[in-house]
Amino acid sequence: MNFIKKILKSRSENGEIFLIEIQKILGFKPHDLSIYKKAFTHSSIKKKSASGQPLNYERLEFLGDALLSSIIAIDLFKKIPTGSEGYLTQMRSKIVSREHLNEIGKDLSLISLISSKVPKNNFGDNIHGNVFEALVGAVYLDKGFVYCEKFINKTVIEPYVDIERLEGKITSYKSVLIEWCQKQKCQIRYDVYEDTGNDRTKHFSVRLYIDDDVVGKGRATSKKKAEEIASKRAYYKLQDQIELSE
Amino acid sequence: MNFIKKILKSRSENGEIFLIEIQKILGFKPHDLSIYKKAFTHSSIKKKSASGQPLNYERLEFLGDALLSSIIAIDLFKKIPTGSEGYLTQMRSKIVSREHLNEIGKDLSLISLISSKVPKNNFGDNIHGNVFEALVGAVYLDKGFVYCEKFINKTVIEPYVDIERLEGKITSYKSVLIEWCQKQKCQIRYDVYEDTGNDRTKHFSVRLYIDDDVVGKGRATSKKKAEEIASKRAYYKLQDQIELSE
Repeated sequence: MNFIKKILKSRSENGEIFLIEIQKILGFKPHDLSIYKKAFTHSSIKKKSASGQPLNYERLEFLGDALLSSIIAIDLFKKIPTGSEGYLTQMRSKIVSREHLNEIGKDLSLISLISSKVPKNNFGDNIHGNVFEALVGAVYLDKGFVYCEKFINKTVIEPYVDIERLEGKITSYKSVLIEWCQKQKCQIRYDVYEDTGNDRTKHFSVRLYIDDDVVGKGRATSKKKAEEIASKRAYYKLQDQIELSE
Repeated sequence: MNFIKKILKSRSENGEIFLIEIQKILGFKPHDLSIYKKAFTHSSIKKKSASGQPLNYERLEFLGDALLSSIIAIDLFKKIPTGSEGYLTQMRSKIVSREHLNEIGKDLSLISLISSKVPKNNFGDNIHGNVFEALVGAVYLDKGFVYCEKFINKTVIEPYVDIERLEGKITSYKSVLIEWCQKQKCQIRYDVYEDTGNDRTKHFSVRLYIDDDVVGKGRATSKKKAEEIASKRAYYKLQDQIELSE
């Protein structure tokens, strides 16, 4: 194969890998892939479009940050019908905090898709959250508001927004369950195993047994998180009994 | 007419007036009027819904503020394709500043529709902007994101968001026009007259003549604003000639 053919082949292979990876993260087929490429381009790459627009993720970050704030506001407004303005504002700050967005970006392994001229281990921790915001902006531009809402629901609200926990009523579902099992004189056991599969980062799966029944499963990038996810699911299955026993 | 009938009649008349006024402000027919009533209910009215939800505008204000920020962000992102993240953030702050939102609320005469147990002259200046934000939240809840975008376009973006002015290139269209007319040796004249019509607050209309032609019209709550609106319209009509002469 000649030199140019090799370059073109490797480029289209890279493009295909990018498409497959981005589709996995999004949960739907992107329409205009170039927007997503921009969302993963660091400003150390100095490209500009013909009209002078910088081809990196910084502008998309501005857009995504705004959409994230308003979509979380809408969700909280609906989920906490008696919460005051101040209370809703405070809840939102917790969800869209820098640390929280960094955690989300890390869990999605976004950094592995970034194009940059700077070595990736030189990036600070905020790169994870920044690229996540840019990705939210890209989804809005590519597919509109409803898709953007769905994407935020899948990546932020479902896995991380837990009103009981945010309200400080429950800080660990695992400890609530352990305590309840002690009272009920049941055996509780977490069966953890490595389960990375096709992911780029290490993952763990957990089965939560009470006596001999599996009552919750979880999968995440750390054992602790996977256990907490399984515990939360078990908690909501058993909620009526747990609340009765309190 | 007996006592109860009188009360009911006056209530339904009030309801009709509210519907007419709100429809004038919105530019479309509301679906669920009760949401808009809440947007105009001050917290001094201590009503709650059956589920314990306070029936005043404070929660809607939280929702509207979030939507306003993101819709303005989307607009700026599209209108200023080469603006950096920092620049877009700065532009947005100018548009959604407290003073600016108060001005918009005042121009729409929103205060006249507020239900309150406190006398209206006891309200501070921020009531205008707060109720405007609540109204944005109400439009979103009642009609969804696209209508909310349209409403913000009509009330904020079209009349107030002027990139040239925000960027500090032009601070007064009137003075640009006067200067240009001096250069061109044309006569410029503003013909101002009171034109309140059916509005609740005083309004003025202006016709801007250059020599004997009307080149712009404007209507607003002050003479100065109406002149500036007419000047801006004239500016955009004559933009090519004005820029050539610079």
